[in-house]
Order: sequence, then structure tokens, then C-alpha cells
Amino acid sequence: MNRYVLTLQYDGTNYCGWQVQPNGIAVQQVVIDALESVIGKTADGVHGCSRTDSGVHADRFICHFDSDTAVPPQGIVLGTNTKLPPDIRILDCKIVDKDFHARYSCKGKTYEYRIRTHPIADAFSYLYEYQYSGNLDCDAMNEAAKYFIGKHDFSCFCSSGSAVQDKVRTVFRADVVKKGDQIVFSVTGDGFLYNMVRIMTGSLISVGEGKIKPKEIAGIIEQKDRSLAGATAPAYGLHLVDILY
Amino acid sequence: MNRYVLTLQYDGTNYCGWQVQPNGIAVQQVVIDALESVIGKTADGVHGCSRTDSGVHADRFICHFDSDTAVPPQGIVLGTNTKLPPDIRILDCKIVDKDFHARYSCKGKTYEYRIRTHPIADAFSYLYEYQYSGNLDCDAMNEAAKYFIGKHDFSCFCSSGSAVQDKVRTVFRADVVKKGDQIVFSVTGDGFLYNMVRIMTGSLISVGEGKIKPKEIAGIIEQKDRSLAGATAPAYGLHLVDILY
Repeated sequence: MNRYVLTLQYDGTNYCGWQVQPNGIAVQQVVIDALESVIGKTADGVHGCSRTDSGVHADRFICHFDSDTAVPPQGIVLGTNTKLPPDIRILDCKIVDKDFHARYSCKGKTYEYRIRTHPIADAFSYLYEYQYSGNLDCDAMNEAAKYFIGKHDFSCFCSSGSAVQDKVRTVFRADVVKKGDQIVFSVTGDGFLYNMVRIMTGSLISVGEGKIKPKEIAGIIEQKDRSLAGATAPAYGLHLVDILY
Repeated sequence: MNRYVLTLQYDGTNYCGWQVQPNGIAVQQVVIDALESVIGKTADGVHGCSRTDSGVHADRFICHFDSDTAVPPQGIVLGTNTKLPPDIRILDCKIVDKDFHARYSCKGKTYEYRIRTHPIADAFSYLYEYQYSGNLDCDAMNEAAKYFIGKHDFSCFCSSGSAVQDKVRTVFRADVVKKGDQIVFSVTGDGFLYNMVRIMTGSLISVGEGKIKPKEIAGIIEQKDRSLAGATAPAYGLHLVDILY
């Protein structure tokens, strides 16, 4: 029995996220069905590095599974891709140590939230960037993002639907940069609460609009009150881009 | 009564092309419905610079219409975009001279055909590039493309469905370049026959595979025999990118 790690990529538009849910099609289910049609039953399913919300994209996603298949890793990549819909791709497959776990071994994740600031949306990328038709002060947003860095109780950036008790997370890096017609918020942390990056983004947009001063972010974090933070930015602008082990 | 020119962009995936057809939804019809809901009836519909095949994309497309509307051009852009589906966008609107005609004033068009050569397709762009899992000799393809340049009878690069009699066209520029994981064939000419760029691309792929030598393209053009040229590459890799007046 070997442990395998898969690197994948998916366009989240048509899915209810990674995790199997009562409504909607989960990426996890689609991957396991395709994979098992190639290598037979896995020992214990496919374990992802993260849940992702409905509609969120993964430019890079890691999962693992156990199997005694004779199919070599490269054959797993090619075979599974022929069974998957084109909006989910296996990029790589490797045999790893038994103590590797896609979720528990994860040291951090990087998300990007992409905001298009051109007054007209793009016909080719409107499913992957949030269209914001207005002026945003990118420098102020970047200044504000720096207050996210460090170990904080992020209760104010967690949607009320969350059952998680411990809301302390550590943010290692947070930047807001202009890239052509996009403003991109990039954040790396050891973990993220339910809707955390999307509420951070909504708060940064409020800063960009001049409704919140950058330094006020510190006070918002401190007060642990969801109602003080900004709106939840839409899912489709959010991309999981890297996972650290 | 003024003549207006619109610059637009569309993802061709869900359409049967620009031109109204018996089956499928035409971009032309969607644009005219949206436009007339904003400015009222146009004098004579909307005239495009080109037909495009079903599934072909337009990164840039020009059309014109006549109207005595009081809505200013910028209002036409904003208003029409709110009525259009997100895969069609009006980028610009201008009042032009009465003798301008989107199709008859057109001096040339540039198409790009995008081929992905990475062994694994991309989950985000598989609708916009043709996935070719194999090695293609890009230099040979570029050498072959040079034989397209000039005034030729392009019968060999025209699908049999075409009713056009005169198959002489002038190609001004033709290049094949590698851009990251893509090989891009870019061609500018005074006009293109039915499926012409897609058959040129199929022929260049045969060159890239070593099945046809670059210099054989000259003979294929000369013999005016469709069966000597390559296959018709799929529509979704093709983008109309520029229109010259």
C-alpha cells in the first residue's frame, strides 16, 4: 500500500467547492470517481489540503490517497485526466511518505483575490475576477493589508456559519498590488476561517473606497466583531494558488 | 441620423458565430436586441466586420449601425453592457462618417490561432486554445507560414461549404511564435475564406509534426486542391484579434 499525492487545478465555477456537500457537485467526488475508475478502489478516499467555498478556484490544490495499484504515477495522471471534466486537471502524482497528510501536514496556504478595476468587465475572464467599476486606492489597501500580518483572533473575518471554536490564525504575508487592470490581494497564512479571505477583501475594498482608514483595520481585528469588517467579496474572484508543506 | 461604430469583444463558445443562422444564437442578434433596448430601433440593424464561425472568439470585433438616438456614445456602451450577457462586451462606441462601413471599409483582419503544447490541458483556458499533446517544430511551422504571404488563390484552404467564387486573397503577414506553453499562429490578410485560418493551422500542424515540409506549402497552394492541405483545426482555438481600416 502506497500513499500518493496529487497536484490538481480546478475552475470552481460549476462546483460546490472541494468538500462533498448535500447540494451540488463536489470536486472531491468528481476526482475520486475518475481516479477509482483508473486504479480501482482507494483504501480510504481522497483527502484534500483544504475545503474551498462554492465557486472558489484552485490554481493549485493538493490531495492524497492510499492505494496498492500497479498503475505508475504518470499513468495515474494521464488516465485520470481522460476521465475528468476539462475544468479539473491532475497536474502531477507522486508517491510520498506514509506520514504525509494533505491537510494536517500543511504549513500554510496562499490565496489570491483578483479585482478588475477597468470600467468594463472582460468577456473572457469575468468568472475569475471580481468586477469593481470604481476607483480604489491600491496603496491604502496595501497599507491596510499589513495589519493582517501576525497571530490574531480573526473572529471579525469569519462568517457566522462557522462551527470552528479557535479563531486564532497566523498571517505570514499580505500584499495588495496592481497588475494591469487588476488589483490583486495576496495572502499567506497557516490557515483561514470560513470566508476569511473574502471578508478581508471586502474590508480592503472599503479601505480602497476611503470608507475605512488603513490603520482602523487593527482596531477591527481587536474588537472581534464581524459587523465591523467589510462585506464578503464574491467567491469567483478567489483563487487558492499555493500550499506549503 | 448618425452612423455609430461599436468595438466589441466576445467569447464565442456559446454562439453560432456573429451572423444570424437558422440554428443557434448569433452574437449579432444578441447585440442588436441589447442595443435596441437602450436606444430604440436602429435604422437598418447592426453590420459586422466579418462573419465568424461557430465557437470562434473575437478579442476585438467592429460593427456599425445608424440611429437618431439622443443617447450619447458613452451611454450606449454602459447601457448596452448592462443588457448583454457577460460573454459579450461593448468596449467602445463612436460616431463616424456616413461612408464608413464595418465590412466594406475593412482593409484587413488579424487572426490568432492558439495551440497549447503542454502535455496537460489548462482547467481555465481549455475553451480558448487547442490542446495538442505532442511535439511540434515551431521553427518549421514559422518557415511554412511565410509561404502564405502574398496574393494567392487559396482554394486549397477553403472548406467545400463555401459559395464564394473568387478565392484570391492577399496575406500581409504570417508568423508562428512560441509564447510560454502556447504556439501562436498569427495571420493578417485582406480577407479570409470559409475556415481558411483553421485549415492553414491544420496544415502548419502537419508541418510541425514533420508530415509536410515547409516548402511543400507553396505547391499545395498552387494546386488549389483542398485535399492536399491539412485538417481543419477546431474553432475554439481561433481568435479574431484586430481589424484594420
